[in-house]
Amino acid sequence: RINSERLWDSLMEMAKIGPGIAGGNNRQTLTDFDGEGRHLFKRWCDAAGLETGVDQMGTMFARREGTDPDALPVYVGSHLDTQPTGGKFDGVLGVLGGLEIIRSLDDLGIKTKHPIVVTNWTNEEGTRFAPAMLASGVFAGVHEQDWAYARQDAEGKRFGDELARIGWKGDEKVGARKMKAFFELHIEQGPILEDEGIDIGVVTHGQGLKWLEVHLTGKESHTGSTPMPKRRNAGLGMARVTELVHEIAMDYQPDAVGAIGHMEAYPNSRNIIAGRTVFTIDIRSPNKDVLDEMDGRIRAGIKTICEALDISFEIEQVGHFDPVTFDEGCVKAIRDAAERLGYSHRNIVSGAGHDACWINRVAPTAMVMCPCVDGLSHNEAEEIFPEWAAAGCDVLFHAVVETAVI
Amino acid sequence: RINSERLWDSLMEMAKIGPGIAGGNNRQTLTDFDGEGRHLFKRWCDAAGLETGVDQMGTMFARREGTDPDALPVYVGSHLDTQPTGGKFDGVLGVLGGLEIIRSLDDLGIKTKHPIVVTNWTNEEGTRFAPAMLASGVFAGVHEQDWAYARQDAEGKRFGDELARIGWKGDEKVGARKMKAFFELHIEQGPILEDEGIDIGVVTHGQGLKWLEVHLTGKESHTGSTPMPKRRNAGLGMARVTELVHEIAMDYQPDAVGAIGHMEAYPNSRNIIAGRTVFTIDIRSPNKDVLDEMDGRIRAGIKTICEALDISFEIEQVGHFDPVTFDEGCVKAIRDAAERLGYSHRNIVSGAGHDACWINRVAPTAMVMCPCVDGLSHNEAEEIFPEWAAAGCDVLFHAVVETAVI
Ligand SMILES: NC(=O)NCCC(=O)O
Ligand SMILES: NC(=O)NCCC(=O)O
Repeated sequence: RINSERLWDSLMEMAKIGPGIAGGNNRQTLTDFDGEGRHLFKRWCDAAGLETGVDQMGTMFARREGTDPDALPVYVGSHLDTQPTGGKFDGVLGVLGGLEIIRSLDDLGIKTKHPIVVTNWTNEEGTRFAPAMLASGVFAGVHEQDWAYARQDAEGKRFGDELARIGWKGDEKVGARKMKAFFELHIEQGPILEDEGIDIGVVTHGQGLKWLEVHLTGKESHTGSTPMPKRRNAGLGMARVTELVHEIAMDYQPDAVGAIGHMEAYPNSRNIIAGRTVFTIDIRSPNKDVLDEMDGRIRAGIKTICEALDISFEIEQVGHFDPVTFDEGCVKAIRDAAERLGYSHRNIVSGAGHDACWINRVAPTAMVMCPCVDGLSHNEAEEIFPEWAAAGCDVLFHAVVETAVI
Repeated sequence: RINSERLWDSLMEMAKIGPGIAGGNNRQTLTDFDGEGRHLFKRWCDAAGLETGVDQMGTMFARREGTDPDALPVYVGSHLDTQPTGGKFDGVLGVLGGLEIIRSLDDLGIKTKHPIVVTNWTNEEGTRFAPAMLASGVFAGVHEQDWAYARQDAEGKRFGDELARIGWKGDEKVGARKMKAFFELHIEQGPILEDEGIDIGVVTHGQGLKWLEVHLTGKESHTGSTPMPKRRNAGLGMARVTELVHEIAMDYQPDAVGAIGHMEAYPNSRNIIAGRTVFTIDIRSPNKDVLDEMDGRIRAGIKTICEALDISFEIEQVGHFDPVTFDEGCVKAIRDAAERLGYSHRNIVSGAGHDACWINRVAPTAMVMCPCVDGLSHNEAEEIFPEWAAAGCDVLFHAVVETAVI
């Protein structure tokens, strides 16, 4: 078993970097705090004698040599970036859980045939630069690197420039590494495991996602002296689309979810009818047909809403992944490990997107989940218990080592 | 008649300060640009030999002496601050129209018994610091000065501090001045005059207003892994209130308007259910009973919406004025002037709030309006023709001089 206390201490140490305002973290990707977090992780990797490398997307790799250096490495990891109001565990547990595996192997003097590589993927969250899982997407060949470099944040800063600015643009060609397998440990971010009192989620699938960035254009005018029939209100349009997305998601739930978390009105003055609004629709389903149907209904609905309000619209898809089925062998390795260790477990579909969803396209991949309090994530109050983290990391440990020895 | 070309040149000169991004202006109150605009206005006043003063709310006064210095002065003016996407005429026409009256009197060698004072009221727009017409409200005794000083902008900067920062906090006690009458020239900001091809609006009433700042609190959580029934979505709440306000306004229109122009979602991340939203409801009616009824229905509606979404709310009234009936004598002076000058005219109710609405409480007051293209205001594309400005200023000239001679 892994060293639960050491794992917890490392989690708490990392959480000191990029503190939030309510006990959590704001360590958004490619900020100075992200750079600081990376340095801390590298120091730990160096101390463990790992060989570190950084690719051109800023993804960090830390390798523990195998007895057969030519054998394909087993990869393990997740991400250190957070939401603006993020928790201490989302992503971080998967990276530091990977490091804990290495440290435990060293403690126990275990050598594996295959090298083991711990990974910190850049910009998993997608909150600053859409889409989410950007670096793993480039790694898996889903996105062009130049396209990724050109992604802009809300202030118009480009991903490539910000990566260079914080000093983590590596030389290594992205996607050059070949993997025997990839394993990711993550908190569930939903309520199922906790509600059912189960230790371990064996992730068999990931639900699909679409992010649609919508721009509505009406006409700025005075809120007092513009007669109601003369208004071209882009704010009202955004409100109607928000309700539309909710209603459509309700039609398909529990097989779908949908919401708008990002919304901006211009010029955002109390006494000006919004002339322009920008917002991002987030819809998800484990069923590709449902996802496509929702997408179609939403686009048709936006058209109808805009016609009624005499406003125009543009829709750009800024994020998309199809539902994922993880590798049978890797899933079995996780299930067997949980079984062997005596943890209760169940199959689960990931509600969130993960780097594992992209890596699954280029390597046998699976995920292990542990519960989180109230199913709460993307909230500074995100919480897990040390025992939960330890159970997840134990299962990860066994699945990884099992895969790496033979 | 006034000098139309000189008036227009001054308008265009002032419009160079605080340029917008689309041909209009962004000269919001108590910004450096506001300070620059004030200096230009003061230079013009000095050149015209006027005695200038600034009160503790930063309101500027420029006095042309009368033949009887003890006679109560006739005041005329409006405001030089603009919306973030403001036009070149909203407010500015009323201030520079006042200045043009003085210049024309000098040209014509006319002396008036009563002094004439041109005024630039601070923070009429209310976009940076709510409420609108802040300085004229303090002048009229509606607001406490300390309360006004403590008003904060979106960045938490205080009105009093910003006033001192730009160097326009005067010594003069606010409201100490007594007025024989106050006249304000303003663009209509609505479509009635242009649609009917009428030169002059004789403003008999102003509609009442309420601004309700609403804070909704739900719970931040993951857009992907939070099941629909578990969401406490403050963004959806804001959308529903936006629709509610629109529907209620539609029930009473054309006797009412309503909209939300200012809206913020936190943390405003694509994959976080908004845990908190802040927005300002703007409702107006010329009928006090209608305004109160709308207010009541909106508050009840917000309660119902929030209960259904399991979110909490706070409502703070950040702006309010009752419908206004302007002074009969002053209104008649404007109507008579329009008649005498041969301009077509009609009675009109102001859809927007104006400094005149507050000053009406402490002095006989009236307003004259000229049309604006498409009824468009609070938009950089706000436009008027020099002839329209000249007609409005001519009427103002005659009404003011008529009142000031006897
Ligand atoms: N795990 C996680 O929160 N990933 C961010 C991408 C998403 O929104 O699913
Ligand atoms: N005239 C004008 O636009 N005043 C600002 C206050 C209001 O919103 O009515």
